[in-house]
Amino acid sequence: MAFSEFRPLDDNSLIEYIKSVPALSSKIGNDFDTLSVKEVGDGNLNFVFIVLNSTGSFVIKQALPYIRCIGESWPMTKERAYFEYLGLKEEGRLSPEHVPEVYHFDRTMSLIGMRYLEPPHIILRKGLIAGIEYPLLAEHMADFMAKTLFFTSLLFRTTSEHKRDVAEYCGNVELCRLTEQVVFSDPYKVSQYNRWTSPYLDRDAEAVREDNLLKLEVAELKSKFCERAQALIHGDLHTGSVMVTRESTQVIDPEFAFYGPMGFDIGAFLGNLILAYFSQDGHADQANDRKAYKEWILKTIEDTWNLFHHKFTALWDEHRNGAGEAYLPAIYNNPEVQLLVQKKYMTDLFHDSLGFGAAKMIRRIVGVAHVEDFESIADAAKRATCEKRALDLAKTILKERRKFEGIAEIVSAIRQYES
Amino acid sequence: MAFSEFRPLDDNSLIEYIKSVPALSSKIGNDFDTLSVKEVGDGNLNFVFIVLNSTGSFVIKQALPYIRCIGESWPMTKERAYFEYLGLKEEGRLSPEHVPEVYHFDRTMSLIGMRYLEPPHIILRKGLIAGIEYPLLAEHMADFMAKTLFFTSLLFRTTSEHKRDVAEYCGNVELCRLTEQVVFSDPYKVSQYNRWTSPYLDRDAEAVREDNLLKLEVAELKSKFCERAQALIHGDLHTGSVMVTRESTQVIDPEFAFYGPMGFDIGAFLGNLILAYFSQDGHADQANDRKAYKEWILKTIEDTWNLFHHKFTALWDEHRNGAGEAYLPAIYNNPEVQLLVQKKYMTDLFHDSLGFGAAKMIRRIVGVAHVEDFESIADAAKRATCEKRALDLAKTILKERRKFEGIAEIVSAIRQYES
Repeated sequence: MAFSEFRPLDDNSLIEYIKSVPALSSKIGNDFDTLSVKEVGDGNLNFVFIVLNSTGSFVIKQALPYIRCIGESWPMTKERAYFEYLGLKEEGRLSPEHVPEVYHFDRTMSLIGMRYLEPPHIILRKGLIAGIEYPLLAEHMADFMAKTLFFTSLLFRTTSEHKRDVAEYCGNVELCRLTEQVVFSDPYKVSQYNRWTSPYLDRDAEAVREDNLLKLEVAELKSKFCERAQALIHGDLHTGSVMVTRESTQVIDPEFAFYGPMGFDIGAFLGNLILAYFSQDGHADQANDRKAYKEWILKTIEDTWNLFHHKFTALWDEHRNGAGEAYLPAIYNNPEVQLLVQKKYMTDLFHDSLGFGAAKMIRRIVGVAHVEDFESIADAAKRATCEKRALDLAKTILKERRKFEGIAEIVSAIRQYES
Repeated sequence: MAFSEFRPLDDNSLIEYIKSVPALSSKIGNDFDTLSVKEVGDGNLNFVFIVLNSTGSFVIKQALPYIRCIGESWPMTKERAYFEYLGLKEEGRLSPEHVPEVYHFDRTMSLIGMRYLEPPHIILRKGLIAGIEYPLLAEHMADFMAKTLFFTSLLFRTTSEHKRDVAEYCGNVELCRLTEQVVFSDPYKVSQYNRWTSPYLDRDAEAVREDNLLKLEVAELKSKFCERAQALIHGDLHTGSVMVTRESTQVIDPEFAFYGPMGFDIGAFLGNLILAYFSQDGHADQANDRKAYKEWILKTIEDTWNLFHHKFTALWDEHRNGAGEAYLPAIYNNPEVQLLVQKKYMTDLFHDSLGFGAAKMIRRIVGVAHVEDFESIADAAKRATCEKRALDLAKTILKERRKFEGIAEIVSAIRQYES
């Protein structure tokens, strides 16, 4: 390897690095004469270089030992690249159609070489803001979540495999702590990092900090996040961690991966779709009132859960007599008890997903990191109106989530909060 | 050290070993002339040697690479001695009055040197069978459980400390798997290891294997046991893991220690007291009808939970503004929300404890390992009558545990099942 200790790459040292790594240089036919290198990272957490020539291409992602946050530097272990690598490999093994292939990993350099997701791939969030429909999105995301969550849970695995992997991912503690802070803590207290569309939402932000029942519920979710090793979760599965075309759906950036509650992934995705929904009125104009697009988002929310439910339980049925140790076939050996345990499991998972999804919505409105869906609405009053609807719905879901019996009821609730 | 690789000790090699370890030989004033060595292990899992002379004493406990079970040999990692050592050190640090001091640990030899709990210390289970009252037992066990569970939970610790220790104890997977099998699986299926007082309980054992609702509930408990890292638990806190005199209560044998659900420890202790209660009729004779003793057991059950509740919440209140990250003081900053979260936490813990306690009762009646409380009742018909009452109560508690609002209701239920 070219570098014996960590250093941030630049355009020049990157070339030197690639030359020293056959797994990378072979991807571009060892041809450096016509090579194009472009740094496209948003500069918040990582360097991301797109490297390509006429022969081939790849992406280099290098973790930096900090994140930038509202102009400040926040130290953050570059070891997260190791867990992102582990996550990409494991999720890629389980759902190869929806995870970019990894070509190379260098722990010293906190560097991953992986498939370049060529145009017209864009970040899903940007597609949602642009009002683009993705007809296969629900199907693909349901497939990704069903496979990655099922196959890393005790429904499929032995407790020996489980404990070994749980221990490994305990090492990703710093990234977990970041989530604990920004999702489960900061929005519910006074914090220098919090912000919201002021002055419009001043009272709403204060109300979140003073809502005892909301705090009670978010504490339960935080406990689950910190204590419950249910499956290998992506840990940051919002619409900014998915790249899409009309035909392709690719999940990236699993640097927050660890063994946690499945509902955190499902909720992250659904919650961010709901945010996208409520932002649409802010993007409507005379050319496009976004009404049809909003219906498509609602359908995608409903389809995602329903397809996930179908695929997950189908995997469970298929592997019922496998090595998974949660429900031994010798015990759960009749159709009646199978139905009972599956219904309970999926109901609990649905309610977990709603809770985590709601918590992720709240934090995007009154916490540190906001979403471009709302941020790109220039008119602050209009933005605040959109955000307040989403916030009010999220508070209701978080507190009343156990009363919802299916995703159709959530879609109804979304419609109700739109006024 | 005398031995560079593992070998089981005998009386002769034990002396050689002690001579090579100053931490041990100094305890007996380096005087080997009048030394008494007695092997007192029950031969199931470990060698236990009592070593003493007029100067001092200690116990040597060596783990063997198997457990003996119904006459057969069952391989079992001797690495459990390492986790027993870790458990003794940590629980001893947190509750020094109730854990014997460790003098020496040798990982290669799977050997622990520790305080000899001198007579009249006996195993609590034997005291319960003999009908001896221990006036401080509830207070001491409540104290031990409150301290060891509180101080290793996220109520007191940061998630960084928590994840580090969770990862370490993931290594104790083999012992966890033993519990998974004998507590949560075998009793609910046909297994060569199961036994019960036949023919009296044949129908009852079958009914356990065919009770879908019971299986649904035990699956939820098994998931919590496998997935929820709530605190460092002893993992085997029945009345055979406690040594007592009227004044002293000492918790031993934490070789099953790992980060799991707190209710598993509390339930193990309470469940085994309930078994002791139901066994009393089998030990009654003309000299002692055991009626007063049964009342003492009921009082001890009630006091143990109530004192635990009191001590645990007192520790919580005391350390409310400490480093614990479950409920940050900046969020849970008013008396009303503090009351809400504490009530919810303790109610959930109570129901967990009932569920785990009931599961532990069931497995002692229709599973592989029975308790001397019942086994020492020679008359099989009488024994079966006692066991059936305990089993029926345990099934009810396991299925209906969420309906019990306090320990007094459990005591009432115990009285109801006694006919």
